[in-house]
Amino acid sequence: MSRWEPDARGRLEKAALDLYSERGYEQTTAAQIAERAGLTERTFFRHYADKREVLFGGSQALEQAFVDTLADTPHTAAPIDAMATTLETVAAFFLERHEHSRQRQAVIAANAELRERELIKLASLSAALTATLHRRGLKDPAATLTAEAGITVFKVGFDRWVGGNGDRPLADFLRESLKELKTVAAGG
Amino acid sequence: MSRWEPDARGRLEKAALDLYSERGYEQTTAAQIAERAGLTERTFFRHYADKREVLFGGSQALEQAFVDTLADTPHTAAPIDAMATTLETVAAFFLERHEHSRQRQAVIAANAELRERELIKLASLSAALTATLHRRGLKDPAATLTAEAGITVFKVGFDRWVGGNGDRPLADFLRESLKELKTVAAGG
Repeated sequence: MSRWEPDARGRLEKAALDLYSERGYEQTTAAQIAERAGLTERTFFRHYADKREVLFGGSQALEQAFVDTLADTPHTAAPIDAMATTLETVAAFFLERHEHSRQRQAVIAANAELRERELIKLASLSAALTATLHRRGLKDPAATLTAEAGITVFKVGFDRWVGGNGDRPLADFLRESLKELKTVAAGG
Repeated sequence: MSRWEPDARGRLEKAALDLYSERGYEQTTAAQIAERAGLTERTFFRHYADKREVLFGGSQALEQAFVDTLADTPHTAAPIDAMATTLETVAAFFLERHEHSRQRQAVIAANAELRERELIKLASLSAALTATLHRRGLKDPAATLTAEAGITVFKVGFDRWVGGNGDRPLADFLRESLKELKTVAAGG
């Protein structure tokens, strides 16, 4: 096998999601993922620490994108509007990722350990957004509530997007979920 | 030791929280908890499956209280108002429990495994509230958003209550947090 492996990471990710979907996450090994991708197991471990990291390797980048975008929104904006802008910007990361996201979500839903890992990821994201809002000068409880509202909107909008056929972008679903949260909070 | 052990469960719980606070959760054994409570290890295991259950043994009762109260609120009430009533009713469970809740929260905050368990508890509570709202005829995403809003208000209000000196009841903090969430969502 050539040492030059074009998009090895992407190929491993696709092979992993396909195998997790076909035979289950527990039943899949790193060696099988590498084989499906036409790569060696050694190459797998150059890109991922373990088979779980294939599903969560992007979490840190997503959190950083959330934090950077939120920090960059004009400080004059109302916190919930800064959050709306952030959600819209982060949604761009998921363009062309509908099928990938759908597969990933199904794998996670089927496994308790992965569901827990996803909860931890979202709790970490919420804490990072709260800290960013503190740095913008927002006090608590407003900062925590704004961050939690953002995470709720993201979760609900993301689930609805993943459950659909992918013909509308994630940003639309996030916008609708925020609007609905506002209605719910207002007693509608 | 007499076989009649008045309030063994409460004594074990208090002994456990004291030991977890003094020497750390990991360093405490069921035998030590029983000894501190003046009871046998066998009595400990009659009341709790393990030392973690001392901290989470009440989760199921709390979830049931949330679900029953929410199901019983008038169906004519706006969902967020039904949630407000539910939070207020459930807060009564924590009367005279400020010091207990403060100790428990500190023990959980200090241990990653317990923090994860707490996240799972809240996710389970959110799913149960969503299901209850579905049974009231509320559709998604409004049902999920109302449930998540309720959990957020509970978390934020609870943290602030625990962080205070306990001279005001939890219900006050939950009411204030809900009011603040409404302000945040409205763009205040």
